[in-house]
Amino acid sequence: MVIFTEWHNGLGISFKVKNILYSKRTPYQQIDIISTSEFGKLLIINNEVQLSERDEYIYHEMLIHPIMISYPFPKNILIIGGGDGGCLREILKYDIESVTLVEIDRTIIDLSKKFFPSLANSFKDKRVKIVNQDGYTFLMNSKDNYDIMVLDTTDPRGIAEKFSSKEFYSIAYSRLNGMLVIQTPNVFLHKEIASKIYYSIKDIFPICRIYFAPIPCLAGLWNFTIGSKKYEPEEVRNKTGVETRFYSIKIHKSIFEFGRIFEKFFKKGHA
Amino acid sequence: MVIFTEWHNGLGISFKVKNILYSKRTPYQQIDIISTSEFGKLLIINNEVQLSERDEYIYHEMLIHPIMISYPFPKNILIIGGGDGGCLREILKYDIESVTLVEIDRTIIDLSKKFFPSLANSFKDKRVKIVNQDGYTFLMNSKDNYDIMVLDTTDPRGIAEKFSSKEFYSIAYSRLNGMLVIQTPNVFLHKEIASKIYYSIKDIFPICRIYFAPIPCLAGLWNFTIGSKKYEPEEVRNKTGVETRFYSIKIHKSIFEFGRIFEKFFKKGHA
Repeated sequence: MVIFTEWHNGLGISFKVKNILYSKRTPYQQIDIISTSEFGKLLIINNEVQLSERDEYIYHEMLIHPIMISYPFPKNILIIGGGDGGCLREILKYDIESVTLVEIDRTIIDLSKKFFPSLANSFKDKRVKIVNQDGYTFLMNSKDNYDIMVLDTTDPRGIAEKFSSKEFYSIAYSRLNGMLVIQTPNVFLHKEIASKIYYSIKDIFPICRIYFAPIPCLAGLWNFTIGSKKYEPEEVRNKTGVETRFYSIKIHKSIFEFGRIFEKFFKKGHA
Repeated sequence: MVIFTEWHNGLGISFKVKNILYSKRTPYQQIDIISTSEFGKLLIINNEVQLSERDEYIYHEMLIHPIMISYPFPKNILIIGGGDGGCLREILKYDIESVTLVEIDRTIIDLSKKFFPSLANSFKDKRVKIVNQDGYTFLMNSKDNYDIMVLDTTDPRGIAEKFSSKEFYSIAYSRLNGMLVIQTPNVFLHKEIASKIYYSIKDIFPICRIYFAPIPCLAGLWNFTIGSKKYEPEEVRNKTGVETRFYSIKIHKSIFEFGRIFEKFFKKGHA
């Protein structure tokens, strides 16, 4: 039996590998796609699981809908990363005007079209603009403002490390009308990185919230951090309702109430 | 590097083993205690992780406090399983009259005293009665009634399988004044077992709720199911407040609101 294991510090998460479908180094990162016995296909970047076919809908819904629901009718959205197309798919459920996807590595988009068609069905939507550039550089040079920003990058190490810096959030703040959200490693297992993201955002934004979603392939549970300029993310402002499988307005408040516990984990004496 | 891996169906959870401190088959089960690099000591029964020193407080607090807080001033408690003493420690924080611990395997209690002293500090409390007997048999022959029952057994396979049966909950119902709670395997990864527990309780009890806690060593997230004869477990009835590190009255409602999502996973089309 071939096993793939990702170590989240002291905790290993393993999958039974059926096939290695793709394995290559691009100029930016090592990309692997494997098929597994219980989780369908997995996208792995730099040995870190990005998504599985089985539970990606939880990840993408929980990354996108809390922020889209709590900002009043967002029109212009920016995604940094997210080349698999999952965020796009969720964002395009809303009545928006434009969404710009800044994915540094074009290969991710091509691979998603080939291996993850259920994620990659939105690239041709006329509201979508794709830019293959580093997200930090793009934002520094951008003259546009966005209602919502989504950071769906790899974990902030290596080329993505800058997305946990105060400097980045200071630039993001200046180009943002409403709120941003960033996928944040599990606070139990990656306390240092999660804490750095949280405090960088908290230093720049008047409102900072952390929440979570249960995602089996991501150590069972993953976190998300929101920075907001004005609107409290706990409040539901768009009750139009879009179709989701996991996220619902009913749990919207709960994820933030529960999220306050995760803030405690940045302090000493917790797991 | 020596690795211990527990497979939750298609998902493996691994730990780096420093030492094997104990490994023996009792008449009831295989017991292993290992020390690990990041999770402290682990108690493992039949190759299934029961607890780690690092996050056992989350497990025990989340198993005990929601039910103790939502029943009005419980006095007499029954624990089936729980020989490590963690449930006892949490229950004895309340002003109760008696707690009966029915642990089939005396060895667990002895090992906990030796290897997990922070869990095993309550066995000598004068409110505690220990019975080394099978919990099902004990309850069938019992003439006593209990305000609260806690099922902290191994997962319902082998000798513990009966704790997922309707027959068991029918007997439990007849000996219970208030509510019972049972630790329930992760609904994503053990859908069949979790679903069996849930529907067995739902068939017997007028109120049945499932909730969750994030527990890194237990596949990142574990579930719990409550059966209640009368009182809605979402409501807080004891606001006296006991000292906890993870559970708080603030998240009490959230765990149940969020828990409704987990019920969906028993249906088709979910992870």
